[in-house]
Amino acid sequence: MIQENLNFIIEILGTISFAMSGAFAAMQKRFDVFGVLIIAFVTSVGGGTIRDLLLDQPVFWTRDIFTCGVIFLSTLVAIFVKSIEKNFKVTLFLFDSIGLGLFTIIGIQKGLTADLHPIICITLGTITGCFGGIIRDILLNRIPLIFRKEIYATACIVGGAVFIILEKYSNFTLGFAQISTIAVIFTIRTLAL
Amino acid sequence: MIQENLNFIIEILGTISFAMSGAFAAMQKRFDVFGVLIIAFVTSVGGGTIRDLLLDQPVFWTRDIFTCGVIFLSTLVAIFVKSIEKNFKVTLFLFDSIGLGLFTIIGIQKGLTADLHPIICITLGTITGCFGGIIRDILLNRIPLIFRKEIYATACIVGGAVFIILEKYSNFTLGFAQISTIAVIFTIRTLAL
Amino acid sequence: MIQENLNFIIEILGTISFAMSGAFAAMQKRFDVFGVLIIAFVTSVGGGTIRDLLLDQPVFWTRDIFTCGVIFLSTLVAIFVKSIEKNFKVTLFLFDSIGLGLFTIIGIQKGLTADLHPIICITLGTITGCFGGIIRDILLNRIPLIFRKEIYATACIVGGAVFIILEKYSNFTLGFAQISTIAVIFTIRTLAL
Repeated sequence: MIQENLNFIIEILGTISFAMSGAFAAMQKRFDVFGVLIIAFVTSVGGGTIRDLLLDQPVFWTRDIFTCGVIFLSTLVAIFVKSIEKNFKVTLFLFDSIGLGLFTIIGIQKGLTADLHPIICITLGTITGCFGGIIRDILLNRIPLIFRKEIYATACIVGGAVFIILEKYSNFTLGFAQISTIAVIFTIRTLAL
Repeated sequence: MIQENLNFIIEILGTISFAMSGAFAAMQKRFDVFGVLIIAFVTSVGGGTIRDLLLDQPVFWTRDIFTCGVIFLSTLVAIFVKSIEKNFKVTLFLFDSIGLGLFTIIGIQKGLTADLHPIICITLGTITGCFGGIIRDILLNRIPLIFRKEIYATACIVGGAVFIILEKYSNFTLGFAQISTIAVIFTIRTLAL
Repeated sequence: MIQENLNFIIEILGTISFAMSGAFAAMQKRFDVFGVLIIAFVTSVGGGTIRDLLLDQPVFWTRDIFTCGVIFLSTLVAIFVKSIEKNFKVTLFLFDSIGLGLFTIIGIQKGLTADLHPIICITLGTITGCFGGIIRDILLNRIPLIFRKEIYATACIVGGAVFIILEKYSNFTLGFAQISTIAVIFTIRTLAL
C-alpha cells in the first residue's frame, strides 16, 4: 500500500520536474505558448515513450489523460513562475536532477518486471531518465546537456547499478532501494557542479 | 463511399504536400538526389510512423508500396519544378499548410477509432501533423519551423479541437468536419503570415 | 551451417564497426567516458532498433546481453586506440563503410522474412544501415554525414537493389549475395572519396 503510493508519487514528481525543465528551456528560446507546451510534453514523456516502445508495451500516456493534465498544469506554473522570477537556474537544476533519479528508477523497474538482464535494465533506466532531456535539447538545436558539463549519464548509470544491487541482490525493501538511488543520483550531480 | 474516397484523397494529398516540402527544403541545402529522396520520405511518413508506433498498430507504409510510389513521384516533380522555377516560397508554404491540416485529421481519426480520450486524440493529431516537419528540420540541423515564426502548433491544436467537437459532439457528417478543420488550420496559418 | 555463421559474423562485425565509429566521433567532441559509451551504443543499435520497431518485432538488443558486451568492449578498444594513435581517419572510414554494408543486408533480410515488397525491403535496409549514423550526428549537433560529401545513401540503396536481385530473383546462394552486396557498397563509397 505504502509502496504503491511511493511509486505513484515518484512518477508524478518526475513528470512535473521534467515538464517544468522543458518549459523553462523553451521559454529561454522565446517560443510561443504552444511551443512551450510541446517541449514540456516531449521532455516529460519522451524517455518513457521510447522505453515502452522498446519493451513493446502500451505507451503509458496514450491511455492516461492524468499525465497530460499534470504536464499542462506544470507548464502553466512554469510560465507563471517565469513572469515573477528571473533567476531560477538552481531551481531548474534541482528539478532536472530529481526527475532524472525518479525516471531512472521507473525504467529499471519496468525492465525487471519484463524479466530482462540487469545490464539491459540499467540501459532502459538510463534511456528513460536521459532521453526526455536529449530530445528537448535536439529540438532546441543544441548539443544535449547530458554530454556537456554536468555528469548526467554517469549519475544515471551509477545510480541504476545501486538500485539493481539493492533491489535484486539484497533484502532491503523496494522503497529503501528507491530512496537510496534517488539520493545517489542527486548527490553525484550536485558534487559535479 | 464518398467518405471513403475523401479519406483516401486526404491521405494522398497530405503525402504529396509533405514529400514536396521535404524535397524543396533538402534541395535548398544542396543535398544530392538520394539525400533529397530520403528527406522527402522522412518528412512525409515521419509523423504517421510515430503515431502508428504510439498506437501499437502496423506502421502504415510498411505494407503499402503505393505510398512509397507517391513520395518517389512527388520528389521527381519537386526536382523538376526546382529546375524551371526559382521562387516558390508561397507554393511551399501552401503545400506545407495543406499537409498539416490533412495529417492532423488523419491522426485524430486514428485516435478516435482506437477509442482514446479526446485530449489524447488531439495530441496524436498534432504529432501526426507536426513531427514529419520536425524530423525534417532536425536532419537539416535547424530549429524546427514549428517553433519559429509560423504558428504551426497553434493551428494544429486549435484545428484538432474543432474537428473533435464537430465529429464527436455534433451531428455534422465526417466530411463536413474534415473540410471545416482543414479550412480552420489553413486560415490560422495564412493569417499568421 | 556455414550460412548461419556468416549471418552471425556479419552482425558482430557491423556492431563493432558502428560502435567504434560512434566512439571515435564522440571522443573528437571530447565527451566523457559515459558520453562516449552512450554514443557508441546508439550508433551501433540505432538503425536496427528503428527497423525492429517498424516491423513490430522484439527489439533485438533488449533480450541479448551479448550485443551490449560487444559494444562495451569495442568502446574500450576505441578509447585505447585513440590514446596511442592520433591519425585514424582512414580506419574510421573503413569501419563505417563495412558497417554500412553489413547492416543494410541484415535490414533487407528481415524485411524479406516478413514477406514485404522489395522496395519496402530496400527502404528498411537503408534505414538499418543509415539511421545509427544519423542519430549519432544529430546527437553531436551536426548535419548527418549521410547528406554531406560521402555518398552514403546512394551506396545503401544501390547495394540494397543488388542484394534483392541476387537473393530473390537469381539462383546464387545467400552467402554470395551478401558478399557481393558488401563489395558493391564498399566500392561505391571508396570510389566516391
